[in-house]
This record gives sequence, C-alpha cells and structure tokens, in this order.
Amino acid sequence: MSIETKFQKLGTDNAPGQEVRQTGGDAGFHGPKLDGRPVDFSHGDVDAHTPTPGAFDLFQQGVRMGAAQAYTEYRGDQQIRDIVAPRLAQFTGAPVDARDGLIVTPGTQGALFLAVASTVDRGDKVAIVQPDYFANRKLVEFFGGEMIPVQMSYEDASANEAGLDLDGLEAAFKAGARVFLFSNPNNPTGVVYSADEISRMAALADRYGATVIVDQLYSRLRYTGASYTHFRAVDGVPENVVTIMGPSKTESLSGYRLGVAFGSHEILTRMEKLQAIVSLRAPGYSQAVLRGWFDEPEGWLDARIRLHQQIRDDLLDILRGVAGVTARTPMAGSYLFPRLPQLTLDPADFVRALRLQAGVTVTPGTEFSPHTASSVRLNFSQDRAASAAAIHRMAELIERYRA
Amino acid sequence: MSIETKFQKLGTDNAPGQEVRQTGGDAGFHGPKLDGRPVDFSHGDVDAHTPTPGAFDLFQQGVRMGAAQAYTEYRGDQQIRDIVAPRLAQFTGAPVDARDGLIVTPGTQGALFLAVASTVDRGDKVAIVQPDYFANRKLVEFFGGEMIPVQMSYEDASANEAGLDLDGLEAAFKAGARVFLFSNPNNPTGVVYSADEISRMAALADRYGATVIVDQLYSRLRYTGASYTHFRAVDGVPENVVTIMGPSKTESLSGYRLGVAFGSHEILTRMEKLQAIVSLRAPGYSQAVLRGWFDEPEGWLDARIRLHQQIRDDLLDILRGVAGVTARTPMAGSYLFPRLPQLTLDPADFVRALRLQAGVTVTPGTEFSPHTASSVRLNFSQDRAASAAAIHRMAELIERYRA
Repeated sequence: MSIETKFQKLGTDNAPGQEVRQTGGDAGFHGPKLDGRPVDFSHGDVDAHTPTPGAFDLFQQGVRMGAAQAYTEYRGDQQIRDIVAPRLAQFTGAPVDARDGLIVTPGTQGALFLAVASTVDRGDKVAIVQPDYFANRKLVEFFGGEMIPVQMSYEDASANEAGLDLDGLEAAFKAGARVFLFSNPNNPTGVVYSADEISRMAALADRYGATVIVDQLYSRLRYTGASYTHFRAVDGVPENVVTIMGPSKTESLSGYRLGVAFGSHEILTRMEKLQAIVSLRAPGYSQAVLRGWFDEPEGWLDARIRLHQQIRDDLLDILRGVAGVTARTPMAGSYLFPRLPQLTLDPADFVRALRLQAGVTVTPGTEFSPHTASSVRLNFSQDRAASAAAIHRMAELIERYRA
Repeated sequence: MSIETKFQKLGTDNAPGQEVRQTGGDAGFHGPKLDGRPVDFSHGDVDAHTPTPGAFDLFQQGVRMGAAQAYTEYRGDQQIRDIVAPRLAQFTGAPVDARDGLIVTPGTQGALFLAVASTVDRGDKVAIVQPDYFANRKLVEFFGGEMIPVQMSYEDASANEAGLDLDGLEAAFKAGARVFLFSNPNNPTGVVYSADEISRMAALADRYGATVIVDQLYSRLRYTGASYTHFRAVDGVPENVVTIMGPSKTESLSGYRLGVAFGSHEILTRMEKLQAIVSLRAPGYSQAVLRGWFDEPEGWLDARIRLHQQIRDDLLDILRGVAGVTARTPMAGSYLFPRLPQLTLDPADFVRALRLQAGVTVTPGTEFSPHTASSVRLNFSQDRAASAAAIHRMAELIERYRA
C-alpha cells in the first residue's frame, strides 16, 4: 500500500467539525430552507452544557505552578496521577497503579491512538465491532492491521444487552485476531454491554490471549435503568487490558484536550515511549484540570445526567413519530443512532441537505459500519429547545425526500 | 521487525524530563555531593523566562468563547489561522495559505510527528543530519523508514556556517533518500546554516525531487551577528517543503502545547487527516494563545534575546576555562553542546553523576548522533546565576573524574 493510499483511507470529509471543508453541491435538493437555530449534532455543545465548575480555576493554578506543570513526565504529572488513580480504581472496581499503570494523553483520541499503535503492527488482525467509533477502523488500517468485523445486532437485542455476536467474536479470535477494540457504552448507538456479555467477552479474550482496548469515554453518563460492567474488573479478565477514559464528554472539558489510559504496564510503557515522539505530553497546564475530575460538586453529575435523559427522551419522541424511523433508546452517553426510512437522496446527499437546508449537522452512519448507511448519529448533548426544534426540521426533511 | 523491537528503539530513558524514571546506580561514583540549586538543563526554565505577557488572558478569552474555541477544525480555528498566516509569511519571507497551507498542532513535536508520518513509509530512505534533534531518527525508524545520516562538521566549520557535508547530502539523495529532515538552528549545537548552505541544500532537494521538513523552532532567538536564511524562501526551493515552528521555546509557552506546520498543501492535507486520529486537534482553548504570537510587546523579544546571549556567554566562559572542554558558540536557540575531555566514567554514567552528585541535569550527546558521545546538551534558558553556579559544579565534576 502506497502512502497515498494509506492517507486516502483516512478520509475525514464527514468527520465531526470538518463539514466546513466540504465542497459538494446541492444537486437533487428541492424546497425551501427551513429556518431555525442551527444545531451541530456532530459533537456536544459545551455552551449548552458547560465545563465542570472550577475547571478553569484549576487550569489557572496550573499556570501559576509554572515550570513544574508546563514540563511534566511524558506520562503526565506524578502528583496528578496519584490523585486520579485511586478515583479511577474506585470508579471501575479494580486497582490502578499511579506510577506504572496510568498515562495522561492529549484527549481520549490521543489515548486511543497510542493504545492501537502500541499493540497493532502490520499484518496483525484486530477484532472491531460494527457499528463502533469510526476512528477504530482507521487506526487499525493506518498501522497496517487487518480488521475482522464483529457484528452487533443492537436493534434486535434485549434492552439490557448490546447484542454483540459472541460467536463472531470467537470466530475472529480463531481467525487470528490478537487485539480486540470496542467502546462501552457503544459509540454511536449508546447501548451498554450486559454483565453477561462482558464476562463472556473477557473469557474469550483470555482463552485466546488477546489484548483488549476498551474505550469507556461515556461510562459516567448513564441513564435510569442502566447497569454498567467495567471490563477490567470482571472475574477472569485477561492481563493485557487498557481502559480509556477522559473528561472531555460528560464533563464538557474537551477544550482542555485531556484523556487517560490505564491498565497493562507493558502496553502503558509503550504508549509513553510513543507519546514522546507524538506530542511529548498532554498539555501541561491542562493536566491540572484533572485534579477536579471525579470530584465534582455534590449533585452536579446527577443533574447533568437528568437533563441529558430529558433531551434524549424529547428527541426520541419526535423521531418515533416519523413513519419508518426506528431508534433504540441509548442507555448511556449522548449519542442517538436512528435508522431513517428509504429516501430519494442517497444517504450522503441527505446528510448534506440536512446541513444546508435545515441547519442540522449529523454524522453519516457509514462512518461507523458499512451496514448502517441509512442511520445517522446525533450527539444530543445540546440545548434542549434548539435540539428539539432541529429534530422537527429533520423530520420535515425526511418527509420532503421520502421515497 | 516485531512490535517489541519497534518500541525498544523508541528508548526514552535519557529523554528530557524522564530522568525521574531511571533506576541506574552509582557504581564508580566518588567524592561528596556538590551543594547548590539544582538546574535541569534538559529543557528551558519557564519560571526564569516567563511566558509572553498576555498569553494567559488570551487563553481565558478562548475559554469564554466556549464551544467555538473548544471544537475547531482539525487544522485549527480558521480565524486564528487567518491571523497567524500573514505573520509567518512576513517572518519567513514567503506566502502562507491560511486555509490550505497551515495546520495548528499539539506542540511542535506534534507537527514533526505528523509531517514525518505523512511523508515516510516503510522502506523509504530519509536523509538525517548528525547531530540533530533526537526525535528525528526515532520518527523515521518508527514508520519503518531507513535513515541515511549526513554529517555536520559543526566544530570545524567557519563561524557563519553549520558545516553540513553537502556532498554527503547529495550522496544520500543519490542513494534514494526522498525526504530530508533537519533543524535550523540546529538542535543540539545552536549553529545556523549559511545562506549559501541553504541555497545549495534547496538546489539538491529540488534536483532529486526530495521532500524537505525544516524544524525552525528556535528561529526567532538569534544572537548578535547571526544571519538567518529561511529555507522555504530561497530561490529555486522545491515545492514539497514543510516548515515547523511554535511558540513553545523563545516565548516560553510550552505549557499550552502549541505548534504549527506550514507549506505544501498536499502534505498539510495528509497531516490534517492523520491529526484526526492522533489527537483530533491542538488543545482548543490553547489555540487562542496564538493570537498573540509574533505580536509581543515592543522590545520584549529583544530583551529576551539579550538576556539569553548573556547567559550563553557566561556559560561559555566557564566551560572554556576547563582544560579539554571545547564548545562552539551557538548563534541561535538556547542549546550549548560542549565536548568534554576523556573521563574515568563512561558518558552515560557521567551524566548520571552530574545529576546525582551535582544537581545538574543534561541530555547525553548520544541522543543526537552516535559520534557525539563525549558531548552533552545544555538548554541554557535558565536562571542566569543558578546556571552559572551549576556549570561551575559541572566543571568540578569533570576534574573529579578526569581520566
């Protein structure tokens, strides 16, 4: 594969926030533009759901600390790792070694990149869930790995299961997959794996000696009735597990660009070595913001979850009122992944029509799986009224282009 | 090459700031510890030379802007690129396209990583100067490239030349090198390439169709008598040039983790695609700090340069008073790269003795070239009195271990 091909596969035209660079036209569009406040569902709105109280003050204290905070170890400041490790251990239910088992990265994307780079080399086979976060596939391909897809029947599964094809996962391991990468809650569907699914996934990974990278970015934002199982804490979990989290989503701290990875010392050591040539370290002063992570004011997280659950339910009500639209109720995170009915525009054009004619930016379903072209992903961490109005406009556009 | 080998080659034990993770002993050490304020010459001291006035206020304004600043395009906020591009064009003497020819990255290390990843694939040959910044070699190796070293006789060259072996560079191109990566001013020696050297390097790169990545991180910090030629602005410069800069050094803004790369649209497009899976974007709020870059208060840069020149001269005076120590006078940047006389400790042990017995942290010369084991790199962007005292302690330790 030439370097040109390698980069063509890294297409970002439909990636969140990149729509401004698109140059596609409006062939096939008809009807008037729909007025209303534009909503960008490709990512959360940190103006509607503002950063954790005190985050900026912690940053300012970091700046005041000066050199000690500007130049940390590549893994991140040891004092901050000492603060964060026990909180992560308590949250996930298994120990976290602050010195050798934790790294601070530039965003969770940074953690994911380092984790995949540290475990996947040319020709390595990697089990990837479909649908799942679009970067997973791109990362595997960038390092020359071979993706073995494992299907998740999230639309047919019972309410407390993700619907992963566990036989498919075993088949992937039998076919030689030695790394398994997945998000829980799943991005884009918002489903959460059941305790039984997680146990069986762990048992399979252990049996076949696979390394597991679990992206738990949204694992704090869980709705009424959700039961969450941390992969790293189940009985019989394999040794080579890296868990990825960060304060960018639930806590709206994306602007500080922080993530963490924790688990296997061997993999963490590689990640640190690689970070040294990728970006040296997570932004120094930003690291100080982690001092407040998992230490938010009493009731703050509950209120955030409650409001997101209301928005989720508002949008689901509107979407389910549109003939032919189906959507599973997300149990965690802030993504909705509705399936749309047959339209006269192909999916990519409809996504562009949504943006240009209705001021509604969404992420096309093809980013997450080749089998979900008729779905779109909506990050509903938005202003409540504006997002409901936007989904009404989306409903109107579905009618306009209904086949 | 297995993934284990690939990561072994990324050794970071001697990298700046990583000394805290070393576990080596003190075999062969003798004599008392030398008292004095410890100085870490492995990087600059942003407490001694504080960030540009107004940087924190710009960051705070970025936070107040909220979502628009937290989630920028992967290349960085377009408004900020519009501000920075003309300043970079004026500084370097050639146009910079704000939309398609500029990317904001997490530090200059981030820019370097993306630039090498976007141009070097498995088996590609890359011309690398010896000595030069240690990450250059590691990056080439990480992507499976083959390094063709080109020697720089910096100790023998005339005062206004770097001493690059231009025949060696041509030989590297003849041997198949299609990428040439170098820093100017050179890290670790502080030498600056002459106009004639730069012109001849550009002509060679053009003749052999090579891509050139120029790391100009320290190009604003130039001392009396330095004449600087921007590679990208010389007559006949090849098309595939990427220039890397950032406000982390001269401006002491490392804690905000910012860098930029500008030049070839084709390479920049690849870098953007890769940034999407590496870290998404440079830290959002931090990007706002770039609004003040190249717009510092009147006289601020001159004063900073003057003070660094004084420290440089202080340290050179002390070092040149030690028998057997030689050091070329750096013309730019804040690195000194003295060659030490023969010692009873091997170089790695002497570096450790410096740290443990004298509170002086330096970077071993082997990081920059296999031929500079008897040199050490000192970042002299330090408190003036403390650094002079530290170099006196270093001189004392050289006497203690003189062979």
